[in-house]
Amino acid sequence: MILAIDLDSDVPIYQQIRDRIVQAIASGELREGSPLPTTRQLGADLGVNFHTVNKAYDLLRREGLLRLSRKTGAVILRDPSTGAPDPAFFPGWEGRLGVLLAEAIAQGVTADEIVERCRHQLPRAAAPDGAENEEDEREGQRT
Amino acid sequence: MILAIDLDSDVPIYQQIRDRIVQAIASGELREGSPLPTTRQLGADLGVNFHTVNKAYDLLRREGLLRLSRKTGAVILRDPSTGAPDPAFFPGWEGRLGVLLAEAIAQGVTADEIVERCRHQLPRAAAPDGAENEEDEREGQRT
Repeated sequence: MILAIDLDSDVPIYQQIRDRIVQAIASGELREGSPLPTTRQLGADLGVNFHTVNKAYDLLRREGLLRLSRKTGAVILRDPSTGAPDPAFFPGWEGRLGVLLAEAIAQGVTADEIVERCRHQLPRAAAPDGAENEEDEREGQRT
Repeated sequence: MILAIDLDSDVPIYQQIRDRIVQAIASGELREGSPLPTTRQLGADLGVNFHTVNKAYDLLRREGLLRLSRKTGAVILRDPSTGAPDPAFFPGWEGRLGVLLAEAIAQGVTADEIVERCRHQLPRAAAPDGAENEEDEREGQRT
């Protein structure tokens, strides 16, 4: 797993780490049961304090996406195929979505364009059953 | 303008003030040219420090939604009818949208449901130019 962190961003580092892991789950790169590096390892890789990584992992744990234990370390707890979301997920998420959409409307983006851009931003893995084949099709530049 | 602020929220107060004003612009409650209260007044109304309000106003100014001047105070600079968005708006917005959508995918929400929930979260004012187009779209309903 490669996490791209922008040290110059306004977004706090722990939030960026959390966001990248969420996106890796959504895209299918990380699956239920995938282990994550230890906080010290990932902190060293990214050049940030391990407490920062810890904060990101704890956030993912509270979101139900990560299991943390001394024995197994940090392990992904769910992926898009795990099942229907907890209904408790929606209120907070929709609140943030509402603000984000309002921002685009306020800036003059039309409703149709917003919906279109939402479609385009959906991770590939969201396409029903299509993600795997699609990735296989991308030419094997791997060594 | 009534701003509902949640002092117990994880969302910083200045961000909440900014979010509520963005939503008021998107819904048509605040329009281009609408004056906002002074930072001291709004701070007193909400029971928060005026520096907090100042931080929210400054964020809105940097987003191109608010004009601040000693002479006129804080005035809304644009609304959905002002015109097309600055293309520079999209990259950052789409980045945040991508994270938010990935979050729902990771939690097991389907792509179709996400698009549907996006539609529902769009503020009413987003309907192009109010009733006209909307009514045109609903074929046959006219007499």
